[in-house]
Amino acid sequence: MEITRELARFVVDSRPADIPAAAYREAKRSVVNWMGCAIGGAHHDAVSVALATLAPFSGPAQATVLGRRERLDILHAALVNGISAHVLDFDDTHLRTLVHPSVPVASSLLALAEYRPFSGSDFLHAFVLGVEVECRIANAIYQGHNVNWYITGTAGVFGAAAAVGKVLGLDEQKMAWAFGIAGTQAAGLRDMAGTMCKSFVHGRAAQNGLQAALLAAQGFTSSERVIEAPRGFANAVSTRHDLGEVLTELGKVWEMELNTYKPHACGVVCHPVIDACLQLRGSPPVDPARVTGMTLRVHPLALKLTGIKSPKGGLESKWSLYHSAAVSIVDGVAGERQYTDEMVFDPRVAALRERIVAEADEQLREDEARVTMTLAGGEVLDCHIPHALGSASNPMSDRDLERKFIDLVADTLPQPKTRKLIDCCWSLAELPDAGELARLAVP
Amino acid sequence: MEITRELARFVVDSRPADIPAAAYREAKRSVVNWMGCAIGGAHHDAVSVALATLAPFSGPAQATVLGRRERLDILHAALVNGISAHVLDFDDTHLRTLVHPSVPVASSLLALAEYRPFSGSDFLHAFVLGVEVECRIANAIYQGHNVNWYITGTAGVFGAAAAVGKVLGLDEQKMAWAFGIAGTQAAGLRDMAGTMCKSFVHGRAAQNGLQAALLAAQGFTSSERVIEAPRGFANAVSTRHDLGEVLTELGKVWEMELNTYKPHACGVVCHPVIDACLQLRGSPPVDPARVTGMTLRVHPLALKLTGIKSPKGGLESKWSLYHSAAVSIVDGVAGERQYTDEMVFDPRVAALRERIVAEADEQLREDEARVTMTLAGGEVLDCHIPHALGSASNPMSDRDLERKFIDLVADTLPQPKTRKLIDCCWSLAELPDAGELARLAVP
Repeated sequence: MEITRELARFVVDSRPADIPAAAYREAKRSVVNWMGCAIGGAHHDAVSVALATLAPFSGPAQATVLGRRERLDILHAALVNGISAHVLDFDDTHLRTLVHPSVPVASSLLALAEYRPFSGSDFLHAFVLGVEVECRIANAIYQGHNVNWYITGTAGVFGAAAAVGKVLGLDEQKMAWAFGIAGTQAAGLRDMAGTMCKSFVHGRAAQNGLQAALLAAQGFTSSERVIEAPRGFANAVSTRHDLGEVLTELGKVWEMELNTYKPHACGVVCHPVIDACLQLRGSPPVDPARVTGMTLRVHPLALKLTGIKSPKGGLESKWSLYHSAAVSIVDGVAGERQYTDEMVFDPRVAALRERIVAEADEQLREDEARVTMTLAGGEVLDCHIPHALGSASNPMSDRDLERKFIDLVADTLPQPKTRKLIDCCWSLAELPDAGELARLAVP
Repeated sequence: MEITRELARFVVDSRPADIPAAAYREAKRSVVNWMGCAIGGAHHDAVSVALATLAPFSGPAQATVLGRRERLDILHAALVNGISAHVLDFDDTHLRTLVHPSVPVASSLLALAEYRPFSGSDFLHAFVLGVEVECRIANAIYQGHNVNWYITGTAGVFGAAAAVGKVLGLDEQKMAWAFGIAGTQAAGLRDMAGTMCKSFVHGRAAQNGLQAALLAAQGFTSSERVIEAPRGFANAVSTRHDLGEVLTELGKVWEMELNTYKPHACGVVCHPVIDACLQLRGSPPVDPARVTGMTLRVHPLALKLTGIKSPKGGLESKWSLYHSAAVSIVDGVAGERQYTDEMVFDPRVAALRERIVAEADEQLREDEARVTMTLAGGEVLDCHIPHALGSASNPMSDRDLERKFIDLVADTLPQPKTRKLIDCCWSLAELPDAGELARLAVP
């Protein structure tokens, strides 16, 4: 089966009218969420250090660094905007595979839009196709995906290459080459969790996919069957894959429609526990000192991915169920401010973390949790969350997404600009020049 | 065991006098060979297309594109010089692992030397350390290294990061971060063979390692145990590894001394067959039309890596035992000119390829071959090559390396400059500014 070729042909042949309205709608929600995360993360140390290091090697000031005043060449802009959009671990999730769909695709596309202008509707069309490509490839490989890799690092490069390749108007062969050049850079080790390098992996997926499409457009040759070849991508990163998933009902079922957004600024598998803790906190809120113990019952994957008991700093605390539960009880919210070094070392939070126990329960779904809280005096409260807020069965509303956006950009953009940028995302399909989005994201 | 930390400490603590003379000698031979390949490959389509594509995004003209007049920022220069140094498949080989040691290390170091000058002896010291790091990591993983990866793509990034990190004076923690940032970009799929993307993988190893060390120097954090962590590098790319190999006799046994160079411009496992064919060709040379059949008996790996019977073009022909044998009989040499599209479609070569059979023989070593040639009239000649020229047991002499260099740069550099550049490589230890090497490599 010519998986790579078929997928390339699908992207090349796609016309805007082929995409259903629901997919376009979810694409706009994704852009709102991605843009908020990028501006919210724009002053994180990971972004500032990357910028300071790379600026001396940047080409002309072609593209915006979202949420900042610096400008970079488009390759560096894709990298840095990818870092900022992911560094808070607050971006979107394709729940089946845990791919973060928007970072590679939107970060690469918007950088290109400032250099080689195209319309908002072309942006949305290419965005949907990019997300489709990366999520379908992820669907095919995730079951046996080597646990050492970040799947957005491995599958994400294809999404960026597809989206950029679409806008560049690549033909089928060049699109297949773009996939090859992208796929040979599939990378990103899970051991980077809790360090700046995790967001770097995600930013690189954007930059590498963008570069792949640009090279292919100029005739840089590559394998034309990178996905399925015996020594190709799928065999390299996955011990068990079903490549049929890449093409099954292609153009009929849209992965774009399955995208989800995080109400809380941490690993998505923590979210049902946070929802439970926020309910258990009650009103007026319980005094954390009165909480003598908590038991978190979660799907085994939650413990595997976020089982860090005593995080060493802000970035690592996003991968701690214990920290997430503790801050939810102490602060009544699990936003970006709850995952800082300061909060990790807050004595109330640290003490409560120590009194929390987590248990894997194979009976639970990934978006489900049962939390029991014991208070001084022996009172026991419990809460069951069947589907976390932000999961497919309980999605964030457009209003929730706007609130999240406003909260994320509050320190960076003035209010009128914030409103204009949100409106611009929602009306992206009518925007003559998609690059306008980037220009509105400058403080 | 703290493999990553120990290795970082070794690089950080190393002093120039710790390196034995034999390692320095081999380092200079490696630089001669690498530089010749880079200049010889500088006008290959892969290089020209990459340059044309990436120039609009390049930063300031900080570094030389070897063998050409263009200048790029150091990150792009490391990439492009890495592409040109590998594109002819003529660069060096660490035979145990099939790593190509110089491309990542020399391409990154020399780019940096033009931006942040350092001496030739610092270059050699850092070069030896970089080669040591990448080859030791390769030693540890190659036995179970996923056959889908290029090992220079996976292990090479560490070599570049180590060498650049040494010159930048990183401390132990930052060196460990540099390894982390490099290791999370370990990549490169074997399915790229025969396309421009193969050399791209090798150039990226140089660029990514350089960038990793620059980022770490500014405090960009990463895992500090990327090599050995459960979700780290070794487990990601290898199913069977012995991480003890990274540290065994570190500082006592030098992998640098085991480097080898190719007399022929193709996959190293073809070389014993070529040596045999060159002998069988005889003097005066046999008429290829009189050769009715040939049987190549080789180590199984040779057939696995270079078993392409009918190559589709020049780059792919470097991975064809059959083509290599045919051109050796027809032209009496297997240099760069024998692996072009033109030669692939030469009717005499194509016809002879069809009359050649190759057989795997487990009794043979990787650098050994037995070739039988049958002539019209029934005469049968055979030749046994116990160790190919260029193998560890039959190394190319300094004079051989110079001849190879001169042949590679003949179309690009004038003769006096060629002589000066060769002399400069041999006297690198006395050069006050290593960047001088790059400046001499401009036509």
